[in-house]
Amino acid sequence: MVIVIQCKDRVGLVAEISGVMAKFGINILTMREFVDTLESMFFARLVIESFDDLPSLEKGLRAVLPVDASVKVNPEPEKKIVVLVTKEYHCLSDILVRNHFKTLGASVEAVIGNYPMLGDLCERFNVPFHYITHEDKEKMDFECEIQEQLAFYQFDYLVLAKYMRIISPEFVASYPNQIINIHHSFLPAFIGASPYKRAFHRGVKLIGATAHFVTNDLDEGPIIVQQTIPVNHTYMVSDMVRAGKEIETSVLAKALHLVFEDRVFVFNNKTIVFE
Amino acid sequence: MVIVIQCKDRVGLVAEISGVMAKFGINILTMREFVDTLESMFFARLVIESFDDLPSLEKGLRAVLPVDASVKVNPEPEKKIVVLVTKEYHCLSDILVRNHFKTLGASVEAVIGNYPMLGDLCERFNVPFHYITHEDKEKMDFECEIQEQLAFYQFDYLVLAKYMRIISPEFVASYPNQIINIHHSFLPAFIGASPYKRAFHRGVKLIGATAHFVTNDLDEGPIIVQQTIPVNHTYMVSDMVRAGKEIETSVLAKALHLVFEDRVFVFNNKTIVFE
Amino acid sequence: MVIVIQCKDRVGLVAEISGVMAKFGINILTMREFVDTLESMFFARLVIESFDDLPSLEKGLRAVLPVDASVKVNPEPEKKIVVLVTKEYHCLSDILVRNHFKTLGASVEAVIGNYPMLGDLCERFNVPFHYITHEDKEKMDFECEIQEQLAFYQFDYLVLAKYMRIISPEFVASYPNQIINIHHSFLPAFIGASPYKRAFHRGVKLIGATAHFVTNDLDEGPIIVQQTIPVNHTYMVSDMVRAGKEIETSVLAKALHLVFEDRVFVFNNKTIVFE
Amino acid sequence: MVIVIQCKDRVGLVAEISGVMAKFGINILTMREFVDTLESMFFARLVIESFDDLPSLEKGLRAVLPVDASVKVNPEPEKKIVVLVTKEYHCLSDILVRNHFKTLGASVEAVIGNYPMLGDLCERFNVPFHYITHEDKEKMDFECEIQEQLAFYQFDYLVLAKYMRIISPEFVASYPNQIINIHHSFLPAFIGASPYKRAFHRGVKLIGATAHFVTNDLDEGPIIVQQTIPVNHTYMVSDMVRAGKEIETSVLAKALHLVFEDRVFVFNNKTIVFE
Repeated sequence: MVIVIQCKDRVGLVAEISGVMAKFGINILTMREFVDTLESMFFARLVIESFDDLPSLEKGLRAVLPVDASVKVNPEPEKKIVVLVTKEYHCLSDILVRNHFKTLGASVEAVIGNYPMLGDLCERFNVPFHYITHEDKEKMDFECEIQEQLAFYQFDYLVLAKYMRIISPEFVASYPNQIINIHHSFLPAFIGASPYKRAFHRGVKLIGATAHFVTNDLDEGPIIVQQTIPVNHTYMVSDMVRAGKEIETSVLAKALHLVFEDRVFVFNNKTIVFE
Repeated sequence: MVIVIQCKDRVGLVAEISGVMAKFGINILTMREFVDTLESMFFARLVIESFDDLPSLEKGLRAVLPVDASVKVNPEPEKKIVVLVTKEYHCLSDILVRNHFKTLGASVEAVIGNYPMLGDLCERFNVPFHYITHEDKEKMDFECEIQEQLAFYQFDYLVLAKYMRIISPEFVASYPNQIINIHHSFLPAFIGASPYKRAFHRGVKLIGATAHFVTNDLDEGPIIVQQTIPVNHTYMVSDMVRAGKEIETSVLAKALHLVFEDRVFVFNNKTIVFE
Repeated sequence: MVIVIQCKDRVGLVAEISGVMAKFGINILTMREFVDTLESMFFARLVIESFDDLPSLEKGLRAVLPVDASVKVNPEPEKKIVVLVTKEYHCLSDILVRNHFKTLGASVEAVIGNYPMLGDLCERFNVPFHYITHEDKEKMDFECEIQEQLAFYQFDYLVLAKYMRIISPEFVASYPNQIINIHHSFLPAFIGASPYKRAFHRGVKLIGATAHFVTNDLDEGPIIVQQTIPVNHTYMVSDMVRAGKEIETSVLAKALHLVFEDRVFVFNNKTIVFE
Repeated sequence: MVIVIQCKDRVGLVAEISGVMAKFGINILTMREFVDTLESMFFARLVIESFDDLPSLEKGLRAVLPVDASVKVNPEPEKKIVVLVTKEYHCLSDILVRNHFKTLGASVEAVIGNYPMLGDLCERFNVPFHYITHEDKEKMDFECEIQEQLAFYQFDYLVLAKYMRIISPEFVASYPNQIINIHHSFLPAFIGASPYKRAFHRGVKLIGATAHFVTNDLDEGPIIVQQTIPVNHTYMVSDMVRAGKEIETSVLAKALHLVFEDRVFVFNNKTIVFE
C-alpha cells in the first residue's frame, strides 16, 4: 500500500508523517524522502503494510501537513491509460503485450491512431482502436476529434507511443502532467524532427531515447527516464532508427512502470523518481 | 552532517528518530531508510543541517532505539586507510592521486607492498611505503609482520588494491568489515585465481570487477559495487587484463567513495548501499 | 548480399578471396575478417553488391580455399525457426511481434510448448502452436514427441525462449549449432537452476542474461550475447525476476538478430561475432 | 605491425592490397575494412606479422592504390604528445600515470598550463611543465606564446585535458586532426559553456562526455568516443561535476588509446573507429 506526499518543506515533516503512522500502528516497509533544498519542496513515498481505515489515515496526515499539500493514500494501483500512435508498432506492441498479460501495471482502455494500420494489432489483443486522421483538417479540429473520442474513456495518463504529431498548447493544458511521450533522442540533443538523421550527420557514437511528460515547450517537459546505446561508423540512418526502436521501447516501458507505481513526482520542469 | 543507524526493526522507528530530530529543531536534508523485511532489520542514513550538541543528539537517539542499535552521529568524514598492494599500479595510483588532491574522502596513512616496485610511486606522492616480502616465510609470519607494521598506524579501513595474496582467517578476524578488496571478475563468476584466463577460455562477452568486504570465505564477502564491460572474440587474455584494469580501478574508486561517505551498511553477507 | 567463410588459416587467404571478387567485378561493401591465431582458423563475412551468377562465384571461391572450408554464398536471408517455450511469455511475445511485422529476420514456423498457456498468444498471431506435455513420460519419449512434431517443419534454428526443461545429449546432437537458448544469468555465474534466487542470496549488484548455442554441457555452450543490469539491496527475488525478464528479452532479440544476419561463427566452444 | 590506408574507393582494392601482402609472403593477422558508400571512401587497418623491408612494402602498396591515397606502413607505435591543461587534475593525472608506467601508448613530451597549479603534479612525474597565462593578453598573443613553446617539442598530438580556453581558428589550422579535446557533455547536448549547470536545470537523467578532434566549429569536431552515466534528482550541480570527472577521464583515456593504436580515421566531420 503506497502513500505519496508532495508539499512545501519545513522542519519536522518526517517526524509528523511517521508519527501519524505510529499512532495508527502502521509499519513502514520502505520510505523514500527527498527535499529539494533550493526550492524548499518535500517529496515522500511510503510503502506501508496493509491498513483498513484509509479515510482516517488520510485525515490524520492532512492534519499535520501544510494545507496545500498533495497527499495520495493508496492511489489506484491499476492505472487506466489511452495510447496515441501513428504508424510504428514497437512501443505499442510492447504495451499491448504487457497489458494482455497483466504486467503493465495499468489497463489500456483504448488506442487512437492518426493512421489506420495499427488497428489490426489492437484487434488481436481485443483493445479498442480508433482511427482519426489528421489529413485535410485544421490541427484544432483534429485535436477536437481526439478529445471527443477521449471523452468516452476514463484514464489517468495519455501515452504517446511514437505519436508523431505536435500537440497544441490547448490540448496539453487539458491533461496537465498526464501526457507521457517517448522522444527518439537523448534530450536535449536533437530536439525536434529527424533526430536519427541528424545523429548520423553529426557522427555521434551513441544514440538514446527520452521518456518525458509533455508540456507546451516541445521536447522540454520533465524527463522521467533516459538511456543511450553505442553506435558506430557502420550505422546508416536506417540502422540507427532500428537500434533506436529497441531503446525507445525499453525506455518507455521503464518510465511507465515507474509512473504507474507512483514513483515519479513532477515539480517545475523536473521529476523526482524514487526507483 | 551524517547519521547512520542500524538495528532490529520495529513499528515506529522512523517516527521516533525523526521525532528526536524535530525536538532538537534539526532539519533533515535527506533520509534514506530500508527495512530488510525477511531479516527484520532497519537501516537508515540521514543528512542533517549542521548541529552543535552532538552528545545530546546521540543520547536522544539511543533513548528511542533498541539497546543494541548501532548509531553513528557525525562519523569522521575524513577516514584513514592503509593500502595493501602487490605489483600492479592502476588502483593504487588512482587512490594516491585522489588522496593527493584531497578528493578521496580519506587519508592514505601508508602503503604496504609484498613487492618493492610500487614504493617509487608512493614516494612521488609523499606517502609512506613499507616493503614486506612474503617469500621464504610462513604465511603466519608474513602476516604478523604486516600487522606489526599496521600497528604503527590508525586506520578505519584496509584497502586491498590488487593485493594478490590470500589472507588468513586470523588476519581477517582482526579487522571485521574493515577490509575492502577489488576482485577482477563479476563475482560469483570466476571465483579464485586467473579469472581473465578462464573468461577467455569460456568465451564470455563481458568481463567485470567486484569490490567487496573480505570475509573468511574467499571471494564470498559482501559485495559493494560491481560493473561489467563488453569484450569480444578479438580479445586475447592480455586484452582482457588491460580492459579489466580500467574497470577494476573504476569499481574500487566507486566503492571507496560510497564507504567513505558512510553509505554502505553490512548485514550478514550483503550490503545495503544508499547511493 | 552476404558471403561467409570459415576455414583453416593460411597466408594469402584475403588476397585470394578478394581476388575472386575482383575477377567477377564485384564491389565489396564491407568485409570483416578475423584470424584466431592460437587455433589458426580464418573467419570472414563479406557484404557485396548484388550479383547474379552465384554458382560461378561459389565455384571460384572454393577453387582458392582449403577443400574443407565452410563457404556460404548468399545464405537464405529469411531464416526459418521453431520456438520452444514453457510458461513465460516475454521472449516469445517479442519474437512473435517482430515476426508479425516482418522485422525478425526470420519466419516463425511453429511454437512448441510443454504447457498449453502460450497457445492463445500464438493463435492471436496466426502461428501454429503445439502443446506437448512432459508429464508422466520418460524424457526420451517426451523428446521423441517433440522431434516428431519438428519433422513437419523445415527450420534453420530451434530457439529456446525460456524453455525450462533440460535437453538430452541425443536431442542436442540432432541439431548441432542450431539450438539457441536464453539463460537467465550472466554465465558462468549461477550455472543451473534458480539463478535469481541465488543472486539474491549472494547479494550481487548486477544481474544478467546470456544467449548461447546449446551443447551437451549444460549452460556451457558458445556464448553469443551477454548483458547485465544493476540491481540493489531493495530487490527481492521477485524484483530480480521481473528485471531479469527485460534483459532476457533484449539479449535474446539481439542474439537472434546477429545469427539471422549470418554474423555469428561457432568454433570449438566460442563464437566469433561480427557486429 | 600496423598498416593504415585511406583513399577513394574502387572495385578490387582489398584484392590489390592483400595481393601485395601475399606477394611479400606476409600473413595478415587482422584486417578491418570499411567503405563509406555515400562518400565512396575506403578505410583499412591491417595488423601483419613482423616484416623487414618496409620501404618495398610501402612502394608495392602505393603502386596499386590511387595516387592520392593516405598510406602509413608501421606508423610510429609510440606517439609523442603535448598536453594542455587549465586547473583540473583528473584527466592530466590519468595521462601522467599511464605515461609513467609506459602504458599510455604515447610519450608525454610536455604539459602547458594557463594556470600554474598543475606544475607540481608534472614535476612529481618528471614531465616538463610550462606555465603560460592568458591574462592581460590578446588571445592571439597568448596562443603565439603557446606555439613558441610547442616549437621546442616534436609531437603527434596536442591533447586538451580539460583546457578551458576556446582556441582560435588560426591555432586549430596549425594542427589539423592533431588536437584532441575532452568535452564535458554528450555532444551535441549542451554545446558550449557550463554543461553540468544546464544539465541540472534541464533535469536530465544522464550526463556524459565526448572526446573529439578539434575543428574551427566549437564542439563540432569529429567525435571519437562518447559515454554516458546515470544521474538522478538528488544530484546537485556539484555532484554532476564530480560524477562527470570520472567519465571525462575514462572517455579521454579510451579515445587516446584508440588514436595511439592508429584505429581512428577522420573523414569530413566524422571518425571511423576500428575498435
